[in-house]
Amino acid sequence: MIFSSSLLENAVNEFAKLPGIGKKTALRLVLHLIKQDEKEVHSFSSAVSTLRQEIKFCTRCHNISDKTLCNICNNPMRKQEMICVVENIRDVIAIESTQQFNGTYHVLGGIISPLDGIGPDQLQIDSLIDRIKTENTKELIFALNPNVQGDTTIYYISKKLQPIEIKITTIARGIAFGGELEYADEMTLAKSITNRISVQNYITSG
Amino acid sequence: MIFSSSLLENAVNEFAKLPGIGKKTALRLVLHLIKQDEKEVHSFSSAVSTLRQEIKFCTRCHNISDKTLCNICNNPMRKQEMICVVENIRDVIAIESTQQFNGTYHVLGGIISPLDGIGPDQLQIDSLIDRIKTENTKELIFALNPNVQGDTTIYYISKKLQPIEIKITTIARGIAFGGELEYADEMTLAKSITNRISVQNYITSG
Repeated sequence: MIFSSSLLENAVNEFAKLPGIGKKTALRLVLHLIKQDEKEVHSFSSAVSTLRQEIKFCTRCHNISDKTLCNICNNPMRKQEMICVVENIRDVIAIESTQQFNGTYHVLGGIISPLDGIGPDQLQIDSLIDRIKTENTKELIFALNPNVQGDTTIYYISKKLQPIEIKITTIARGIAFGGELEYADEMTLAKSITNRISVQNYITSG
Repeated sequence: MIFSSSLLENAVNEFAKLPGIGKKTALRLVLHLIKQDEKEVHSFSSAVSTLRQEIKFCTRCHNISDKTLCNICNNPMRKQEMICVVENIRDVIAIESTQQFNGTYHVLGGIISPLDGIGPDQLQIDSLIDRIKTENTKELIFALNPNVQGDTTIYYISKKLQPIEIKITTIARGIAFGGELEYADEMTLAKSITNRISVQNYITSG
Protein backbone atom coordinates (compact mmCIF):
# COMPACT_ATOMS: atom_id res chain seq x y z
CA MET A 1 0.00 0.00 0.00
CA ILE A 2 1.42 3.38 -1.02
CA PHE A 3 0.33 6.45 0.93
CA SER A 4 0.50 10.10 -0.01
CA SER A 5 0.78 11.11 3.65
CA SER A 6 3.19 9.84 6.27
CA LEU A 7 0.73 10.72 9.05
CA LEU A 8 -1.84 8.48 7.42
CA GLU A 9 0.68 5.72 6.83
CA ASN A 10 1.80 5.89 10.43
CA ALA A 11 -1.73 5.61 11.81
CA VAL A 12 -2.62 2.76 9.44
CA ASN A 13 0.51 0.84 10.45
CA GLU A 14 -0.33 1.28 14.13
CA PHE A 15 -3.86 -0.05 13.63
CA ALA A 16 -2.57 -2.94 11.50
CA LYS A 17 -0.49 -4.12 14.49
CA LEU A 18 -3.70 -5.00 16.36
CA PRO A 19 -4.69 -8.67 16.20
CA GLY A 20 -7.06 -9.60 13.38
CA ILE A 21 -6.74 -6.19 11.70
CA GLY A 22 -5.14 -6.11 8.26
CA LYS A 23 -3.96 -3.09 6.27
CA LYS A 24 -7.26 -2.60 4.44
CA THR A 25 -9.34 -2.71 7.63
CA ALA A 26 -6.81 -0.43 9.32
CA LEU A 27 -7.18 2.09 6.50
CA ARG A 28 -10.97 1.95 6.79
CA LEU A 29 -10.78 2.61 10.54
CA VAL A 30 -8.30 5.47 10.14
CA LEU A 31 -10.34 7.16 7.39
CA HIS A 32 -13.37 6.84 9.67
CA LEU A 33 -11.47 8.62 12.47
CA ILE A 34 -10.37 11.41 10.13
CA LYS A 35 -14.02 12.16 9.38
CA GLN A 36 -14.92 12.44 13.08
CA ASP A 37 -14.78 15.58 15.25
CA GLU A 38 -11.37 16.33 16.72
CA LYS A 39 -12.97 15.98 20.18
CA GLU A 40 -14.16 12.44 19.46
CA VAL A 41 -10.77 11.37 18.19
CA HIS A 42 -9.14 12.92 21.23
CA SER A 43 -11.42 10.95 23.56
CA PHE A 44 -10.53 7.78 21.64
CA SER A 45 -6.77 8.27 21.84
CA SER A 46 -6.83 9.46 25.45
CA ALA A 47 -9.00 6.49 26.53
CA VAL A 48 -6.33 4.19 25.10
CA SER A 49 -3.33 5.94 26.61
CA THR A 50 -4.97 6.53 30.02
CA LEU A 51 -5.96 2.87 30.14
CA ARG A 52 -2.42 1.65 29.59
CA GLN A 53 -0.91 4.15 32.04
CA GLU A 54 -3.40 3.78 34.86
CA ILE A 55 -4.67 0.23 34.65
CA LYS A 56 -3.90 -1.94 37.66
CA PHE A 57 -4.43 -5.57 38.47
CA CYS A 58 -6.27 -6.44 41.66
CA THR A 59 -3.67 -7.69 44.13
CA ARG A 60 -6.12 -10.24 45.48
CA CYS A 61 -7.82 -11.78 42.42
CA HIS A 62 -5.57 -10.48 39.58
CA ASN A 63 -8.58 -9.14 37.71
CA ILE A 64 -8.19 -5.88 35.84
CA SER A 65 -8.97 -2.94 38.11
CA ASP A 66 -8.82 0.84 38.57
CA LYS A 67 -7.50 0.46 42.11
CA THR A 68 -5.27 -2.00 43.98
CA LEU A 69 -8.39 -3.93 44.99
CA CYS A 70 -11.02 -4.48 42.29
CA ASN A 71 -14.71 -3.58 42.56
CA ILE A 72 -15.64 -7.22 43.09
CA CYS A 73 -13.14 -7.90 45.88
CA ASN A 74 -14.10 -4.60 47.46
CA ASN A 75 -17.84 -5.24 47.43
CA PRO A 76 -19.22 -6.36 50.84
CA MET A 77 -22.45 -7.50 49.13
CA ARG A 78 -20.56 -10.29 47.34
CA LYS A 79 -19.76 -13.61 48.96
CA GLN A 80 -16.05 -13.16 49.64
CA GLU A 81 -15.76 -16.76 50.87
CA MET A 82 -16.62 -18.11 47.39
CA ILE A 83 -13.90 -18.07 44.70
CA CYS A 84 -14.47 -18.77 41.03
CA VAL A 85 -11.21 -19.76 39.29
CA VAL A 86 -10.96 -18.56 35.68
CA GLU A 87 -8.29 -18.54 33.00
CA ASN A 88 -8.41 -14.86 32.04
CA ILE A 89 -10.16 -11.51 32.32
CA ARG A 90 -12.44 -12.23 29.38
CA ASP A 91 -13.93 -15.12 31.34
CA VAL A 92 -14.61 -12.83 34.31
CA ILE A 93 -16.50 -10.47 32.01
CA ALA A 94 -18.43 -13.38 30.46
CA ILE A 95 -19.52 -14.72 33.86
CA GLU A 96 -20.29 -11.25 35.25
CA SER A 97 -22.50 -10.62 32.23
CA THR A 98 -24.73 -13.57 33.21
CA GLN A 99 -25.43 -11.80 36.56
CA GLN A 100 -25.79 -15.24 38.14
CA PHE A 101 -22.64 -15.34 40.26
CA ASN A 102 -22.32 -13.43 43.48
CA GLY A 103 -18.88 -14.56 44.72
CA THR A 104 -15.36 -13.42 43.87
CA TYR A 105 -12.88 -14.50 41.20
CA HIS A 106 -9.30 -15.63 40.89
CA VAL A 107 -7.69 -15.04 37.50
CA LEU A 108 -4.97 -17.64 36.83
CA GLY A 109 -3.58 -15.81 33.79
CA GLY A 110 -3.59 -19.01 31.72
CA ILE A 111 -3.89 -22.75 32.20
CA ILE A 112 -1.32 -25.50 32.64
CA SER A 113 -0.20 -26.45 29.13
CA PRO A 114 3.15 -28.27 28.92
CA LEU A 115 3.01 -28.20 25.09
CA ASP A 116 3.02 -24.39 25.18
CA GLY A 117 5.62 -24.37 27.94
CA ILE A 118 3.20 -23.09 30.57
CA GLY A 119 3.70 -24.71 33.96
CA PRO A 120 2.02 -24.05 37.33
CA ASP A 121 4.77 -21.59 38.32
CA GLN A 122 3.80 -19.14 35.58
CA LEU A 123 0.22 -19.01 36.79
CA GLN A 124 -1.37 -17.40 39.85
CA ILE A 125 -1.76 -20.78 41.56
CA ASP A 126 0.44 -20.13 44.62
CA SER A 127 -1.38 -16.89 45.32
CA LEU A 128 -4.67 -18.81 45.07
CA ILE A 129 -3.51 -21.38 47.63
CA ASP A 130 -2.24 -18.59 49.92
CA ARG A 131 -5.53 -16.80 49.54
CA ILE A 132 -7.52 -19.90 50.48
CA LYS A 133 -5.27 -20.53 53.47
CA THR A 134 -5.42 -16.99 54.86
CA GLU A 135 -9.04 -16.19 54.01
CA ASN A 136 -11.90 -18.29 55.25
CA THR A 137 -12.78 -19.64 51.78
CA LYS A 138 -15.71 -22.05 51.78
CA GLU A 139 -16.10 -22.94 48.11
CA LEU A 140 -13.86 -23.01 45.06
CA ILE A 141 -15.61 -23.16 41.68
CA PHE A 142 -13.55 -23.98 38.60
CA ALA A 143 -14.84 -22.21 35.48
CA LEU A 144 -12.17 -23.35 33.01
CA ASN A 145 -12.64 -24.28 29.38
CA PRO A 146 -13.54 -27.95 29.02
CA ASN A 147 -10.38 -29.41 27.49
CA VAL A 148 -7.35 -31.44 28.55
CA GLN A 149 -5.41 -28.40 29.77
CA GLY A 150 -8.40 -27.18 31.78
CA ASP A 151 -8.85 -30.61 33.36
CA THR A 152 -5.11 -30.85 34.14
CA THR A 153 -5.26 -27.47 35.89
CA ILE A 154 -8.28 -28.53 37.93
CA TYR A 155 -6.54 -31.77 38.89
CA TYR A 156 -3.30 -30.00 39.88
CA ILE A 157 -4.97 -27.37 42.05
CA SER A 158 -7.37 -29.87 43.68
CA LYS A 159 -4.42 -32.07 44.58
CA LYS A 160 -2.63 -29.12 46.21
CA LEU A 161 -5.74 -28.31 48.22
CA GLN A 162 -6.26 -31.84 49.55
CA PRO A 163 -5.03 -31.03 53.09
CA ILE A 164 -7.44 -28.10 53.30
CA GLU A 165 -11.13 -28.60 54.01
CA ILE A 166 -12.96 -26.79 51.23
CA LYS A 167 -15.80 -27.57 48.83
CA ILE A 168 -14.46 -27.76 45.28
CA THR A 169 -16.84 -27.72 42.31
CA THR A 170 -16.66 -27.11 38.57
CA ILE A 171 -19.18 -25.55 36.21
CA ALA A 172 -21.49 -28.09 34.59
CA ARG A 173 -20.54 -29.54 31.24
CA GLY A 174 -23.33 -30.67 28.99
CA ILE A 175 -25.43 -29.89 25.98
CA ALA A 176 -25.63 -26.11 25.44
CA PHE A 177 -28.95 -24.33 25.23
CA GLY A 178 -30.13 -24.38 21.63
CA GLY A 179 -27.72 -27.21 20.87
CA GLU A 180 -28.91 -30.47 19.39
CA LEU A 181 -28.13 -33.88 20.87
CA GLU A 182 -27.60 -35.32 17.42
CA TYR A 183 -24.67 -32.99 16.70
CA ALA A 184 -23.06 -33.00 20.17
CA ASP A 185 -19.67 -34.72 20.41
CA GLU A 186 -19.51 -38.01 22.25
CA MET A 187 -17.44 -36.64 25.13
CA THR A 188 -19.94 -33.91 25.92
CA LEU A 189 -22.92 -36.23 25.59
CA ALA A 190 -21.24 -38.86 27.77
CA LYS A 191 -20.43 -36.26 30.48
CA SER A 192 -23.96 -34.88 30.33
CA ILE A 193 -25.35 -38.38 31.02
CA THR A 194 -22.85 -39.24 33.76
CA ASN A 195 -23.43 -35.93 35.53
CA ARG A 196 -27.20 -35.90 35.04
CA ILE A 197 -29.14 -33.74 37.48
CA SER A 198 -32.52 -34.30 39.10
CA VAL A 199 -35.39 -32.65 37.24
CA GLN A 200 -36.42 -31.05 40.53
CA ASN A 201 -33.08 -29.19 40.71
CA TYR A 202 -33.22 -28.37 37.00
CA ILE A 203 -36.62 -26.71 37.27
CA THR A 204 -35.86 -24.71 40.40
CA SER A 205 -32.50 -23.46 39.06
CA GLY A 206 -33.89 -22.45 35.68
CA MET B 1 -21.05 -6.63 29.12
CA ILE B 2 -20.18 -5.82 32.74
CA PHE B 3 -16.69 -4.49 33.49
CA SER B 4 -14.80 -4.39 36.74
CA SER B 5 -12.86 -1.31 35.62
CA SER B 6 -14.21 1.95 34.25
CA LEU B 7 -10.93 2.58 32.37
CA LEU B 8 -11.38 -0.71 30.57
CA GLU B 9 -15.04 -0.05 29.88
CA ASN B 10 -14.22 3.38 28.51
CA ALA B 11 -11.56 2.06 26.12
CA VAL B 12 -13.79 -0.80 24.95
CA ASN B 13 -16.65 1.62 24.27
CA GLU B 14 -14.34 3.88 22.25
CA PHE B 15 -13.14 0.97 20.09
CA ALA B 16 -16.69 -0.31 19.66
CA LYS B 17 -17.60 3.04 18.00
CA LEU B 18 -15.35 2.17 15.04
CA PRO B 19 -17.13 0.72 12.01
CA GLY B 20 -17.34 -3.08 11.92
CA ILE B 21 -16.04 -3.46 15.48
CA GLY B 22 -18.41 -4.94 18.04
CA LYS B 23 -18.01 -5.10 21.82
CA LYS B 24 -16.29 -8.50 21.84
CA THR B 25 -13.73 -7.51 19.20
CA ALA B 26 -13.20 -4.18 20.99
CA LEU B 27 -12.46 -6.06 24.21
CA ARG B 28 -9.98 -8.32 22.42
CA LEU B 29 -8.15 -5.30 20.96
CA VAL B 30 -8.06 -3.46 24.28
CA LEU B 31 -6.76 -6.50 26.19
CA HIS B 32 -4.09 -6.81 23.50
CA LEU B 33 -3.05 -3.19 24.05
CA ILE B 34 -2.88 -3.68 27.83
CA LYS B 35 -0.35 -6.45 27.31
CA GLN B 36 1.91 -4.23 25.17
CA ASP B 37 4.72 -1.97 26.36
CA GLU B 38 3.61 1.47 27.49
CA LYS B 39 5.79 2.92 24.71
CA GLU B 40 3.98 0.96 22.02
CA VAL B 41 0.58 2.00 23.29
CA HIS B 42 1.74 5.61 23.44
CA SER B 43 2.88 5.49 19.81
CA PHE B 44 -0.52 4.05 18.87
CA SER B 45 -2.55 6.72 20.63
CA SER B 46 -0.29 9.57 19.55
CA ALA B 47 -0.37 8.41 15.89
CA VAL B 48 -4.15 8.65 16.02
CA SER B 49 -4.36 12.04 17.71
CA THR B 50 -1.55 13.60 15.65
CA LEU B 51 -3.21 12.37 12.46
CA ARG B 52 -6.52 14.03 13.28
CA GLN B 53 -4.89 17.29 14.39
CA GLU B 54 -2.38 17.70 11.60
CA ILE B 55 -3.91 16.03 8.58
CA LYS B 56 -4.58 18.34 5.65
CA PHE B 57 -6.25 17.92 2.31
CA CYS B 58 -4.33 18.88 -0.82
CA THR B 59 -5.80 22.14 -2.09
CA ARG B 60 -5.33 21.05 -5.68
CA CYS B 61 -6.46 17.39 -5.81
CA HIS B 62 -8.21 17.04 -2.39
CA ASN B 63 -6.17 13.97 -1.58
CA ILE B 64 -5.09 13.46 2.01
CA SER B 65 -1.77 15.21 2.64
CA ASP B 66 0.75 16.36 5.24
CA LYS B 67 1.10 19.75 3.54
CA THR B 68 -1.15 22.09 1.57
CA LEU B 69 0.01 20.42 -1.65
CA CYS B 70 0.26 16.62 -1.62
CA ASN B 71 3.34 14.59 -2.57
CA ILE B 72 1.82 13.67 -5.92
CA CYS B 73 0.89 17.22 -6.97
CA ASN B 74 4.30 18.38 -5.76
CA ASN B 75 6.26 15.78 -7.71
CA PRO B 76 7.79 17.17 -10.95
CA MET B 77 8.44 13.59 -12.14
CA ARG B 78 4.70 12.95 -12.47
CA LYS B 79 2.67 14.01 -15.49
CA GLN B 80 0.86 17.03 -14.05
CA GLU B 81 -1.18 17.41 -17.25
CA MET B 82 -2.90 14.06 -16.70
CA ILE B 83 -5.70 13.86 -14.12
CA CYS B 84 -7.27 10.67 -12.84
CA VAL B 85 -10.72 11.34 -11.32
CA VAL B 86 -11.56 9.11 -8.36
CA GLU B 87 -14.36 8.90 -5.83
CA ASN B 88 -12.30 8.83 -2.63
CA ILE B 89 -8.87 8.54 -1.00
CA ARG B 90 -9.07 4.75 -0.83
CA ASP B 91 -9.20 4.67 -4.63
CA VAL B 92 -6.05 6.83 -4.84
CA ILE B 93 -4.24 4.35 -2.59
CA ALA B 94 -5.52 1.39 -4.66
CA ILE B 95 -4.30 2.93 -7.95
CA GLU B 96 -0.99 4.10 -6.45
CA SER B 97 -0.38 0.56 -5.22
CA THR B 98 -0.48 -0.74 -8.82
CA GLN B 99 2.52 1.59 -9.63
CA GLN B 100 1.13 1.85 -13.17
CA PHE B 101 -0.11 5.44 -13.14
CA ASN B 102 2.22 8.39 -13.36
CA GLY B 103 -0.21 11.29 -13.51
CA THR B 104 -2.08 13.22 -10.81
CA TYR B 105 -5.46 12.67 -9.15
CA HIS B 106 -8.60 14.57 -8.39
CA VAL B 107 -10.64 13.25 -5.47
CA LEU B 108 -14.33 14.03 -5.94
CA GLY B 109 -15.28 13.11 -2.38
CA GLY B 110 -18.20 10.97 -3.61
CA ILE B 111 -20.25 10.38 -6.74
CA ILE B 112 -23.50 11.84 -7.98
CA SER B 113 -26.25 9.85 -6.31
CA PRO B 114 -29.67 11.53 -6.20
CA LEU B 115 -31.11 8.68 -4.09
CA ASP B 116 -28.57 9.47 -1.34
CA GLY B 117 -29.14 13.20 -1.81
CA ILE B 118 -25.68 13.78 -3.28
CA GLY B 119 -25.68 16.27 -6.14
CA PRO B 120 -22.80 17.75 -8.19
CA ASP B 121 -22.58 20.75 -5.79
CA GLN B 122 -21.50 18.57 -2.88
CA LEU B 123 -18.59 17.14 -4.88
CA GLN B 124 -15.28 18.65 -6.00
CA ILE B 125 -16.53 18.99 -9.59
CA ASP B 126 -16.32 22.80 -9.92
CA SER B 127 -12.74 22.73 -8.63
CA LEU B 128 -11.96 20.03 -11.21
CA ILE B 129 -13.34 22.15 -14.05
CA ASP B 130 -11.44 25.23 -12.76
CA ARG B 131 -8.30 23.14 -12.52
CA ILE B 132 -8.63 21.89 -16.10
CA LYS B 133 -9.31 25.45 -17.34
CA THR B 134 -6.34 27.05 -15.56
CA GLU B 135 -3.84 24.22 -15.93
CA ASN B 136 -2.88 22.84 -19.29
CA THR B 137 -4.59 19.46 -18.70
CA LYS B 138 -4.26 17.08 -21.65
CA GLU B 139 -6.08 13.99 -20.45
CA LEU B 140 -8.80 13.20 -17.95
CA ILE B 141 -9.14 9.55 -16.87
CA PHE B 142 -12.24 8.49 -14.99
CA ALA B 143 -11.53 5.72 -12.48
CA LEU B 144 -14.96 5.45 -10.91
CA ASN B 145 -16.73 2.32 -9.77
CA PRO B 146 -18.70 0.74 -12.62
CA ASN B 147 -22.30 1.40 -11.61
CA VAL B 148 -25.14 3.77 -12.50
CA GLN B 149 -23.92 6.53 -10.16
CA GLY B 150 -20.39 6.28 -11.57
CA ASP B 151 -21.67 6.48 -15.13
CA THR B 152 -23.93 9.44 -14.24
CA THR B 153 -20.94 11.27 -12.77
CA ILE B 154 -18.83 10.57 -15.87
CA TYR B 155 -21.66 11.80 -18.11
CA TYR B 156 -22.21 14.97 -16.06
CA ILE B 157 -18.54 15.99 -15.97
CA SER B 158 -17.96 15.12 -19.65
CA LYS B 159 -20.95 17.27 -20.60
CA LYS B 160 -19.53 20.22 -18.62
CA LEU B 161 -16.17 19.79 -20.36
CA GLN B 162 -17.60 19.76 -23.89
CA PRO B 163 -16.41 23.30 -24.74
CA ILE B 164 -12.87 22.44 -23.66
CA GLU B 165 -10.55 20.45 -25.89
CA ILE B 166 -9.34 17.57 -23.77
CA LYS B 167 -8.97 13.81 -24.12
CA ILE B 168 -11.40 12.04 -21.81
CA THR B 169 -11.05 8.32 -21.06
CA THR B 170 -12.28 5.83 -18.50
CA ILE B 171 -10.62 2.76 -17.05
CA ALA B 172 -11.45 -0.44 -18.94
CA ARG B 173 -14.36 -2.55 -17.77
CA GLY B 174 -14.21 -6.23 -18.45
CA ILE B 175 -13.53 -9.64 -17.03
CA ALA B 176 -11.17 -9.40 -14.05
CA PHE B 177 -7.93 -11.38 -13.96
CA GLY B 178 -8.64 -14.77 -12.44
CA GLY B 179 -12.37 -14.32 -13.13
CA GLU B 180 -14.30 -16.86 -15.17
CA LEU B 181 -16.43 -15.95 -18.19
CA GLU B 182 -19.08 -18.41 -17.11
CA TYR B 183 -19.71 -16.55 -13.83
CA ALA B 184 -19.37 -12.99 -15.13
CA ASP B 185 -22.57 -10.94 -15.17
CA GLU B 186 -24.11 -10.15 -18.55
CA MET B 187 -23.41 -6.41 -18.33
CA THR B 188 -19.69 -6.92 -17.77
CA LEU B 189 -19.42 -9.58 -20.45
CA ALA B 190 -21.35 -7.42 -22.92
CA LYS B 191 -19.11 -4.39 -22.21
CA SER B 192 -15.99 -6.52 -22.52
CA ILE B 193 -17.08 -7.60 -26.01
CA THR B 194 -18.18 -4.15 -27.18
CA ASN B 195 -14.92 -2.57 -25.96
CA ARG B 196 -12.68 -5.37 -27.16
CA ILE B 197 -9.05 -4.42 -27.70
CA SER B 198 -6.58 -5.56 -30.35
CA VAL B 199 -4.40 -8.44 -29.23
CA GLN B 200 -1.39 -6.39 -30.30
CA ASN B 201 -2.27 -3.72 -27.70
CA TYR B 202 -3.15 -6.34 -25.12
CA ILE B 203 0.24 -8.05 -25.39
CA THR B 204 2.31 -4.87 -25.35
CA SER B 205 0.41 -3.41 -22.34
CA GLY B 206 0.56 -6.59 -20.28
